Amino acid sequence: MKSVATTGKGSLETRARVPVAVLGATGYAGVELLRILGRHPRVELSVVSSQQFAGKSISEVYPSLAGKCDMVLEPIDIAKMSPRFEFVFTALPHETSMDVVPALLKEGKRVVDLSADFRLHDPEIYARWYRPHKAADLLPKAVYGLTELHRNEIARASLVANPGCYPTGALLGLAPLFAAKLVHGAVLVDAKSGVTGAGRTGAVELSYSEVNENFKAYQVGIHRHAPEIEQELSAIADWPVPVLFVPHLVPMNRGILSTMYLEVDEGATEKTLAGLYRDAYGKEAFVRILPPGCFPETKDVRGSNDCAVGFRLDARLKRLVVITAIDNLVKGAAGQAVQNMNLMCGFPEAEALVTPALVP
Amino acid sequence: MKSVATTGKGSLETRARVPVAVLGATGYAGVELLRILGRHPRVELSVVSSQQFAGKSISEVYPSLAGKCDMVLEPIDIAKMSPRFEFVFTALPHETSMDVVPALLKEGKRVVDLSADFRLHDPEIYARWYRPHKAADLLPKAVYGLTELHRNEIARASLVANPGCYPTGALLGLAPLFAAKLVHGAVLVDAKSGVTGAGRTGAVELSYSEVNENFKAYQVGIHRHAPEIEQELSAIADWPVPVLFVPHLVPMNRGILSTMYLEVDEGATEKTLAGLYRDAYGKEAFVRILPPGCFPETKDVRGSNDCAVGFRLDARLKRLVVITAIDNLVKGAAGQAVQNMNLMCGFPEAEALVTPALVP
Amino acid sequence: MKSVATTGKGSLETRARVPVAVLGATGYAGVELLRILGRHPRVELSVVSSQQFAGKSISEVYPSLAGKCDMVLEPIDIAKMSPRFEFVFTALPHETSMDVVPALLKEGKRVVDLSADFRLHDPEIYARWYRPHKAADLLPKAVYGLTELHRNEIARASLVANPGCYPTGALLGLAPLFAAKLVHGAVLVDAKSGVTGAGRTGAVELSYSEVNENFKAYQVGIHRHAPEIEQELSAIADWPVPVLFVPHLVPMNRGILSTMYLEVDEGATEKTLAGLYRDAYGKEAFVRILPPGCFPETKDVRGSNDCAVGFRLDARLKRLVVITAIDNLVKGAAGQAVQNMNLMCGFPEAEALVTPALVP
Amino acid sequence: MKSVATTGKGSLETRARVPVAVLGATGYAGVELLRILGRHPRVELSVVSSQQFAGKSISEVYPSLAGKCDMVLEPIDIAKMSPRFEFVFTALPHETSMDVVPALLKEGKRVVDLSADFRLHDPEIYARWYRPHKAADLLPKAVYGLTELHRNEIARASLVANPGCYPTGALLGLAPLFAAKLVHGAVLVDAKSGVTGAGRTGAVELSYSEVNENFKAYQVGIHRHAPEIEQELSAIADWPVPVLFVPHLVPMNRGILSTMYLEVDEGATEKTLAGLYRDAYGKEAFVRILPPGCFPETKDVRGSNDCAVGFRLDARLKRLVVITAIDNLVKGAAGQAVQNMNLMCGFPEAEALVTPALVP
Repeated sequence: MKSVATTGKGSLETRARVPVAVLGATGYAGVELLRILGRHPRVELSVVSSQQFAGKSISEVYPSLAGKCDMVLEPIDIAKMSPRFEFVFTALPHETSMDVVPALLKEGKRVVDLSADFRLHDPEIYARWYRPHKAADLLPKAVYGLTELHRNEIARASLVANPGCYPTGALLGLAPLFAAKLVHGAVLVDAKSGVTGAGRTGAVELSYSEVNENFKAYQVGIHRHAPEIEQELSAIADWPVPVLFVPHLVPMNRGILSTMYLEVDEGATEKTLAGLYRDAYGKEAFVRILPPGCFPETKDVRGSNDCAVGFRLDARLKRLVVITAIDNLVKGAAGQAVQNMNLMCGFPEAEALVTPALVP
Repeated sequence: MKSVATTGKGSLETRARVPVAVLGATGYAGVELLRILGRHPRVELSVVSSQQFAGKSISEVYPSLAGKCDMVLEPIDIAKMSPRFEFVFTALPHETSMDVVPALLKEGKRVVDLSADFRLHDPEIYARWYRPHKAADLLPKAVYGLTELHRNEIARASLVANPGCYPTGALLGLAPLFAAKLVHGAVLVDAKSGVTGAGRTGAVELSYSEVNENFKAYQVGIHRHAPEIEQELSAIADWPVPVLFVPHLVPMNRGILSTMYLEVDEGATEKTLAGLYRDAYGKEAFVRILPPGCFPETKDVRGSNDCAVGFRLDARLKRLVVITAIDNLVKGAAGQAVQNMNLMCGFPEAEALVTPALVP
Repeated sequence: MKSVATTGKGSLETRARVPVAVLGATGYAGVELLRILGRHPRVELSVVSSQQFAGKSISEVYPSLAGKCDMVLEPIDIAKMSPRFEFVFTALPHETSMDVVPALLKEGKRVVDLSADFRLHDPEIYARWYRPHKAADLLPKAVYGLTELHRNEIARASLVANPGCYPTGALLGLAPLFAAKLVHGAVLVDAKSGVTGAGRTGAVELSYSEVNENFKAYQVGIHRHAPEIEQELSAIADWPVPVLFVPHLVPMNRGILSTMYLEVDEGATEKTLAGLYRDAYGKEAFVRILPPGCFPETKDVRGSNDCAVGFRLDARLKRLVVITAIDNLVKGAAGQAVQNMNLMCGFPEAEALVTPALVP
Repeated sequence: MKSVATTGKGSLETRARVPVAVLGATGYAGVELLRILGRHPRVELSVVSSQQFAGKSISEVYPSLAGKCDMVLEPIDIAKMSPRFEFVFTALPHETSMDVVPALLKEGKRVVDLSADFRLHDPEIYARWYRPHKAADLLPKAVYGLTELHRNEIARASLVANPGCYPTGALLGLAPLFAAKLVHGAVLVDAKSGVTGAGRTGAVELSYSEVNENFKAYQVGIHRHAPEIEQELSAIADWPVPVLFVPHLVPMNRGILSTMYLEVDEGATEKTLAGLYRDAYGKEAFVRILPPGCFPETKDVRGSNDCAVGFRLDARLKRLVVITAIDNLVKGAAGQAVQNMNLMCGFPEAEALVTPALVP
């Protein structure tokens, strides 16, 4: 830790700031990390990396950062960078992150990895959905970083696997119901995401002219985030919960709305469910439960780390509808990553994260 | 019929054109009717009405029509207008249409009504979702105008209740499955619509700044189109099919994508389902079935009268996902209305309706 | 011409259709050509080509065409294709078209080229803005295909260079003023285009997440369409008209709005200007002049071949503002190309092109 | 001032916070004020008012504020509210603000008014563009709140008229050129704004279906922001500068791009202009000058208080193009209002305002 202050707690200004690296800073999750870390009073951004834009200033790639963060992007060279940071966010592509994280851990760094590489505990499941894992020995060490579910393990972890954006929205709405053993049968997750969820990419099918004025489902029932949701729900429920996951692409930049359909026990009422959610999240800084029959919109959380949850129990059909809204780049990526870092570093969990949405 | 030609069938040019009225021409369904009727070789638009803009030219309200349709909008006065048309589209608000349709029928006109007023056969159900019906005696005469399901009755009807946009998208995907008695349990319809579905309106919550960069569900489980879907599915299935209908608002102008979740009999396979759809729609001009695992996008049908249908059977979860795409203003409103008129007037069913989507 | 009918004029059905090829059918201008040609009663699409998608059906690339045009895309092989068409649209990239057009002309085909390769008469100017021309000998033969300006030459031409989208919008608003010798000084063209103007491309800067919720100028004063506008205005005015051209990118798919600023002679009034425009365009099918002080919107022309023109003379500032709206893919590309083909083939000029805009 | 700390400067935590009111808190500028003030360490929001939503919580109107600002909206009653605030932002409609501001000043409050009511110094000009002024005696006291131009007067003012969004973008790009006496002739301002500039409104022409996929000019040469720009430029230049102002509506929520065309003295070069801008803005926190030939995009400033300025001198045409980008709700409204408050209260000018844009 860069020693600025010395004894006692010191004021915020004199207290040491933790030097932090962001590897893969020019992706959308990366630049969102920079936006959030820029207002964090306890860290100092000390290294930003990019393979593609190495040698350029980050503000050449994102002019929005000019005058606010003009650091030069470095190619990844862990030995060379290592002395300059203590904590690191890896915002690298899936299947690339696992090439880098082991070396970082060996150097004693604490890591929040935003890729999918360390989210699945079972290397066989990882291999089925991605490719054979190259650092499978690390999987037992990695903690699944859905903060509200695994707060204690996260605080102690050296490697936190930041959840996928879709699983974050789904699990926050579903977890208390499974913890209460209220659900039976399969869960249907009909999710809708803004386009930044696909990352910064030049794919024709993500070009403006193709996405605008269009709505579609994709990877229906075969999306890689399904096993992530199943892993977590099954662990909570203690039975193998089957999840049918159908994502859709919304012509907007940010936001995920997840509409979920469940069969719950006969005895459940909207009142008991409201109580159950209140017990689960009443003290959470970033989860907001709406009254039964009220539902969130993605704009309510745009640019914020919040997750808003609404539900309705349809008595006639015996189906519970749960709808959650998050910003896929904040609670679904960079915001939750910082939330996890805050826990890991002993900072207040909400530090740098309590901001209202950018509305309209 | 305005007599232009005299004997024999005549060529298209000399054959008489049916004089047609559009009441409520300045709503989005109304102007879409004008766009389609303008290229119809067998009808002549003879009356356009609007309460709000009476006295103005339709092209003052919609400059896109200037030089193509500059007719003057008239306030509704059935006695006065009546001699000037034989066929009429009523594109009036719900609960207003029923004030006008009885008089039109009394005058011997044939009517396609685009409101919800004559879609529900049961006046009690209508009263529950809308208000007490003022022309309940007409409900048994009205034919539900989903062309592919009720072709024969439509051809003979004097009053066709054009289906809602959501029910059109849902029913075209679901009907063959229920006809084949393959489904059990409730149907979940998670539908997503462009904003024109809400009509031409100055509601703050439909203003650009509120809708853009936002995604939300609304009227979750309590939308008026649910009883319409239930009515039709129950009639086909011969048992009371419960439907959980959850509509969402997409920041785009046109298009409905309906993602539907069903439990089907054990024996069903993607192959048998493909065959079943092929049998049902193989000869249809406007329904296109995609290979299993392929799914439509709303842009594929933008501006066209097509409905595209995709499906996947998830063997592990024993759930069938069916996804349909329509343009809510065409197959979901004006296009289907013209398709019904074609049947009612003995014209080729696809007349004026075979156009590719406007892509991109 | 494929001989179907034989003697006499025949009805439309029995008259021969001209076999037509579209080379480069999978770009946005190409697919728009297919959309328009599909409703053209006097041509038959006989060849569609694509290098990238050769071997696939066009409806695999554009599912909107399924059942309407399922032709197989062929790689360009002029010798092989040649017997199967008489007329050809080349919708190929700039600097590629000039590799293909000479061979087409040698085969006796009549060509509308949608690239920039034959628009500039002066090979030195072409070389300055693009690259050295490989078929400079053809430049004197090529007719600049702004239909309203060069109707007679187009009708007789074997090679028509279809204008750029921006020049089309600018020139239709400006030409009558220069023809009347009313303008002095430089012309400022502040143009705003939808994103399809950039073509079907996977460039990151044209991805949805980059373009949506953003507005920017690009190639300020250095865009390749400037010399095209200058060439035509100078020819009309008979003096070298300087044009400052500043294009902008609008987050929408289709449409160009051009706001133009001019200094006109003292004597000009809104009334004389209105008369001047009326004289120039009164008989045109696709140019619509609005009353002084009224201005068009791009949605008024979406999907149509129309150009709408509005203007206001600011007496205090002695400046004339002229605003035009076109659909960049129709009047700005495929629609005008078909309009030119109609002239070249002796068809009615407006054949297949009179459709109202798709509104909303 | 609510007395928390007592002597000395105190730490930020113990220093007194100034109690602040926002009248008209539910408009878009109002809610943006709440977003910014919520992170301001030296003020305390003590009163929020709304006529339309009086009695509701602000977070009922804007769920994005739930848990962050749940204050109850009060109807305006100055006598009753007055003891509870020292500083006030009036974000009321034009022609309403002048009914309220005199009473606030009488109570000794310091006011930043976000309406147009106190921007024009000349009551006759106000009357010509709006209506006869009811508090014309206050016009000489009001300081035009473009912070970078009138910093010193603002610091001492009791009433600051926060500039219009369009004038802010235009003037920041133009002022240094006029101060240097470099410009002659009329200035053309071709401005493009996101839709929130029109406020929170239910006008049909601002509904999503009308604005989306559309681009248009409006109030061409007759927009109320023109006299504001002329007033300020003329004061700087010391000659009556004529401005032709043409605003356009962009289908996006936030952002104004202003493209401006000027004739500058022969001697000017891009180098001298760059120096001139550097001298004017080198020390400014919120104005960023790009290198000649580089231009800003609205997304670079979305959600931030920045104004980015680019320019190109076209030697051939002897025209200077200046392009500026701002967020209309931040630097164009609420952000600049807080910047002015900071000056008026003796706070650091940039307090609560240094945040990077929300990208993407």
